[in-house]
Amino acid sequence: MEAIRFKNDILYLLDQTKLPAEEVWIEYTDYRAAAEAIVTMVVRGAPAIGITAAYAYFLAAKEYSGQPAIQFSASMARARQKIASTRPTALNLFWALGRMDSVLERFGRSPSALPSLRAAAQEIHREDVEMNRAIGRFGAAVVPQGAGILTHCNAGALATGGYGTALGVIRAAHSQGKVSMVYADETRPLLQGARLTAYELVRDGIPTTLITDSMSGSLMRMGKIQMVVLGADRVAANGDFANKIGTYSVAVLAKHHGIPFYTAMPGSTIDLSLPSGEEIVIEQRNGREISHIRDIQLAPEGAILYNPAFDVTPHSLVTGIITDKGVVYPPFEENLRALFG
Amino acid sequence: MEAIRFKNDILYLLDQTKLPAEEVWIEYTDYRAAAEAIVTMVVRGAPAIGITAAYAYFLAAKEYSGQPAIQFSASMARARQKIASTRPTALNLFWALGRMDSVLERFGRSPSALPSLRAAAQEIHREDVEMNRAIGRFGAAVVPQGAGILTHCNAGALATGGYGTALGVIRAAHSQGKVSMVYADETRPLLQGARLTAYELVRDGIPTTLITDSMSGSLMRMGKIQMVVLGADRVAANGDFANKIGTYSVAVLAKHHGIPFYTAMPGSTIDLSLPSGEEIVIEQRNGREISHIRDIQLAPEGAILYNPAFDVTPHSLVTGIITDKGVVYPPFEENLRALFG
Repeated sequence: MEAIRFKNDILYLLDQTKLPAEEVWIEYTDYRAAAEAIVTMVVRGAPAIGITAAYAYFLAAKEYSGQPAIQFSASMARARQKIASTRPTALNLFWALGRMDSVLERFGRSPSALPSLRAAAQEIHREDVEMNRAIGRFGAAVVPQGAGILTHCNAGALATGGYGTALGVIRAAHSQGKVSMVYADETRPLLQGARLTAYELVRDGIPTTLITDSMSGSLMRMGKIQMVVLGADRVAANGDFANKIGTYSVAVLAKHHGIPFYTAMPGSTIDLSLPSGEEIVIEQRNGREISHIRDIQLAPEGAILYNPAFDVTPHSLVTGIITDKGVVYPPFEENLRALFG
Repeated sequence: MEAIRFKNDILYLLDQTKLPAEEVWIEYTDYRAAAEAIVTMVVRGAPAIGITAAYAYFLAAKEYSGQPAIQFSASMARARQKIASTRPTALNLFWALGRMDSVLERFGRSPSALPSLRAAAQEIHREDVEMNRAIGRFGAAVVPQGAGILTHCNAGALATGGYGTALGVIRAAHSQGKVSMVYADETRPLLQGARLTAYELVRDGIPTTLITDSMSGSLMRMGKIQMVVLGADRVAANGDFANKIGTYSVAVLAKHHGIPFYTAMPGSTIDLSLPSGEEIVIEQRNGREISHIRDIQLAPEGAILYNPAFDVTPHSLVTGIITDKGVVYPPFEENLRALFG
């Protein structure tokens, strides 16, 4: 399962706004359209946005490669600005553009950079998948045989170059015959669990049960869940981490039932400059995401709508942090620094 | 605020499937349609179901009142079975039908019971509102001053003959100036919290914040919630209780954060013949409630859909049981029997 393909200089994106009802691939040869795909969330997930931006950068270079060098350089500067403006909060976007910039600079910002830009974009893509496979390998080792696994939101192939982080762990464990059932909670308000996680797991033939967010506690009590694994948006030096709203509740429920609770991410998500999760600012999103689904009104006028995008889970609730360099256990402060300092 | 009216032998139900966008009242003179209203959740909530069942019983008696006594008795037996089959887990349904049965028996199961059946149904309705006001009085006494209160699902005026059980506690506490904010979780999959609880609280001018089910843990950690109060579908002799799916998770989260957790219900919901919650059979509902909202497909084909209507919360997580006869504290077994045995 993947949502980004690149072949014969054409970028193909699986339109995630149409999932799970329709599977529509869109072709991109124009960097402007590829940039717009980030804005309209045809593609989402921090790693996937970075990869798309790198390919868009290449598409711009190809379009302008017939221009004289000075003009080419100016065209690329404009194209870069266009791509960079799509999701100003996405760190991976700027990281990927910076890497493409350095290739362009190496060739004196001339059209002769084209083959190396192509290779660089593909390398960014390939590296991401390899990191996810490493996360998967390390994570699969801690999955109990015959496990029922709960995951939250979508830390999957659809959010990355392919394979996924938390879902990479599940994929690797499944290929080893260790997974009896994945429980995907739907992840209100934006339903990434239902629309994306259940979709990509079912598509890969992994047994998947979709539940509402309110059912995980009850399933834990029934003994159906042996492990929780989910993604992270940002990990602090002490192991606290921010992730999709609802992660904290799942962590408390896992603790209460003595169920191992893991978060999985590449090293680039770990921010050792951040002492703890208390310093993470939580984005507040539009209340309409709660009060409506498309045009259907779910709530009355007059209610206050509270819609934080993330919550922070303290490290005391975390069993282990699964990274592309290995699984980190407490004391997290010391062990994260040893691996990523 | 009420959702059941009875006038000139016509039963009126506020169609709760249309809330909060539309306020539509449906008229019933046919008991089959009234029974169907329970199945399709035009009316829901254990007490409201009991009241509706009693009125449906009366409507059946009225329809068959022209029949000879023997035929009337057989018709009523069939009608009773039809009404009883609508929600097999709703204890109030059977309690209400039992009360109507005894009136019918008192008149030798003859059509002459009609006026007394009418009076009995109205009495069941009136008593319920009175009980809710008593629950509200007892419950308001345990609400801390300036409390943020979390509630789940709808144990409100819309679930009862009027005023509500858990929301009766909130209404009474609010009228005493004790409530700073009610947090209503939306209660997936059927969204009773968003559609019904937020609707009836806002309508009564009580400050209400709507959240997704996944946000309550995070709010507890932030210190926003000083008390949880919610309803019960069935309380066992030891204080275990069944209630809307998600109740158990809220109970665990409250325990973890040291927040008092109360359930509120009339004595008729307490089943002393049931030793514990383990004996409660959990109704499984159609998976489409999870995979779709109206015609919008939220989930892929091929995912298993798990959709229990209820979960069971063990008494060890319960601070107190608020009833129309007072608040019951541990040891529940002894204290419930003292009050209701």
